[in-house]
Amino acid sequence: MSVYTSVSREQLESFLRLYDEGPLASYCGIKAGIENSNFFVTTERGEFVLTLFEKHAAYELPFFLNLMAHLAERGVPSAHPIADRTGKYLQYLNGKPAALVRRLSGESPHQPTAGYCRAVGQALARLHLAARDYRGHRDNDRGVTWWFAVREVLHSRLPEEDARLLNRELKFQGQNRYADLPRGVIHADLFRDNAMFVGDELTGIIDFYYACNDVLLYDLAITVNDWCSKAGGVLDTTKANALLEAYDAERRLTSLERRTWPVMLRAAALRFWLSRLHDQHFPRSGQITHMKDPDEFKRILVDRIANAQPL
Amino acid sequence: MSVYTSVSREQLESFLRLYDEGPLASYCGIKAGIENSNFFVTTERGEFVLTLFEKHAAYELPFFLNLMAHLAERGVPSAHPIADRTGKYLQYLNGKPAALVRRLSGESPHQPTAGYCRAVGQALARLHLAARDYRGHRDNDRGVTWWFAVREVLHSRLPEEDARLLNRELKFQGQNRYADLPRGVIHADLFRDNAMFVGDELTGIIDFYYACNDVLLYDLAITVNDWCSKAGGVLDTTKANALLEAYDAERRLTSLERRTWPVMLRAAALRFWLSRLHDQHFPRSGQITHMKDPDEFKRILVDRIANAQPL
Repeated sequence: MSVYTSVSREQLESFLRLYDEGPLASYCGIKAGIENSNFFVTTERGEFVLTLFEKHAAYELPFFLNLMAHLAERGVPSAHPIADRTGKYLQYLNGKPAALVRRLSGESPHQPTAGYCRAVGQALARLHLAARDYRGHRDNDRGVTWWFAVREVLHSRLPEEDARLLNRELKFQGQNRYADLPRGVIHADLFRDNAMFVGDELTGIIDFYYACNDVLLYDLAITVNDWCSKAGGVLDTTKANALLEAYDAERRLTSLERRTWPVMLRAAALRFWLSRLHDQHFPRSGQITHMKDPDEFKRILVDRIANAQPL
Repeated sequence: MSVYTSVSREQLESFLRLYDEGPLASYCGIKAGIENSNFFVTTERGEFVLTLFEKHAAYELPFFLNLMAHLAERGVPSAHPIADRTGKYLQYLNGKPAALVRRLSGESPHQPTAGYCRAVGQALARLHLAARDYRGHRDNDRGVTWWFAVREVLHSRLPEEDARLLNRELKFQGQNRYADLPRGVIHADLFRDNAMFVGDELTGIIDFYYACNDVLLYDLAITVNDWCSKAGGVLDTTKANALLEAYDAERRLTSLERRTWPVMLRAAALRFWLSRLHDQHFPRSGQITHMKDPDEFKRILVDRIANAQPL
C-alpha cells in the first residue's frame, strides 16, 4: 500500500480550484512509490500527478520543485510542476504539503537494452549541464557523514563478514576523496523505475526527491550500477559503455573523472547497500511490503571492488 | 493526541526481555510532546520512559542517545538511556526506532522564579562544558540555510508587515555573523517544558532531539527568550540577569559574546517565529492540536530589535 494519505473527491475538487486546469474529471491512487502518496488526476485540461509529501517538510520542497521546473524548461525530459493561480508550485492538502505536476507518458523499462542505456546516459549529462545555472542548493544527506551514522547503528547488527566488508569499504572511501571532481546538482536516484520510455524514447525522468549538490561522476555511477548490472551484480560492460559514451558525448569526462571511476562505482554501490540494510533493520511501518534486497547492492559492491577499471 | 504508535502489553513485555530491568508492572501513554510517541513504563526495577521515534530515522539517533548518556555520566541532570543486554541504547519496536530512558522526577515550571532561572543558567553552562569532549557531531538543521528555505515557502503567504519584518531580520542576521563565537554541542530547545524541577531543584533536562553543534551563546539566547519574557514579549531583566549570572559563573562569557548578545537574542527569536509560522501554514496531520502561536515569538523578536543591549 503506497497511498498513506487519502484524498476525497470534495477535497480534490476544492484543491483544483486553486489552479487554472479546469474541474476534476477523474482520479485514482498510484501504488508505485514508497515515500509519498501519489494520485493520477485528470481534469478537462490535462493529466496530472498529485503528490502529497509524507516525508519532506514544506520548506524542503522548493529546491525540488524549482529544479524540476528549471530542467523541464531547458528540455530535460522531466515533469513540470503546475503553478497555482498565484504562481506557487507548493500547496497544502489534507495535512501534507502537496504539488501537482504534469503527467508524463511512458513506462519504466525493466530489461533495458543498450539503446535505453544510451538514452539515459545522454539525458543524465543534459540534466547535469542544464542544472549548472540552477540557483538552489541542497547538501547530500546520504553522503559520507550519513555513511558513518548508518554504520554506527548497523555495526553490531551485521554478520561479521558484512561488518568487515563495510569497515574496509568505509576506510577505502575515506582515503579516496577527490576535492577536484566536477560538482553540481545531481539526481542521485536515477534507477530504472525513475525513467519512463515510449518505445526507444526517454520521455521522462521522475522522482527528484534525493536530488542534491554533489559529485557529478557519483550520479553517473549510481545510474550505471542500476542500469548496467547483470545477475550476481557483475557489470554489463556493453551497456555500461553505451551509457558512458552517450554521457561523454554530451559532457566530456575529465581525466580525473576517468581515473576515479572505480572509486565512484564503489561509493555508489555502498550508498544503496547501506540504505537497504538500514531499512531492513529499521523498516518504517509502511515500508515493509516494499523492502528491497540489500544483498543486490552487496553483490554489486563486491564485483566493483574486484573488477572495476578506470575509463 | 500525542501517542501516534500504540504498543500492546505483549509487545512491551517482549521488548523488555531485551533489557535487564525486570518484567513489566504497568505502563501508560504520555500526552505531552508533539513529535514522538512516549510511554511511562514501570518494571520491578524502576521507572522509565519509552520513546518511539516518529520523525527521526534510526541512523540519526545515536548522536542524541550517546549525548544523553555522556551528559548524565558527567553530572548534568538529564535522563540516561538504558542499554539492552547487548549494550545498545537503540532498539526497534512496532515499526519505529525506540529507546528506553530512566524516568526523572519533577515537573516543568510554568511561572519560573528568578531562582529557577538561576538553576537553568547554571545547568546550561554545565551542559556546554560537559559536552566539550563529546565526540558526536550534528549540524544544526534549523540554522541559516533553513531560515532562508522557510522564508521561500512563507514569503507569499505572510501579511506584508510580517514579510517585511522577516526580510529585514534575515538581512540583519546575514550581515552579523561571527565566526569566532565559542561553539560546541547545544541543546537548542531548552524551553520551560524541557526542564523539570522538584521544589527549587532542577532535576532534569529532557528532549535533546534538536541538540546539535552550534554557537553556545545562541543556546543561551534561546533559553533566555523562553524563561525570561514577560507578557507582550518584553525581556524580564531580573530573571535574565539571574540566568546569565549563573551561566557566567560556570562558563565565563567572552567579550565577543557580551557584545553580540543582542544579535543572538534576535536570532533565537527569529528561529522559533519561523518554525511556528511554518507549522501554522503547513501543519502536519497530527500536530494541529498542539499548534503554538507564532505571534509570541514575533513579539519577542520585535522587543529584542528595539531593546536588547550588550552584556
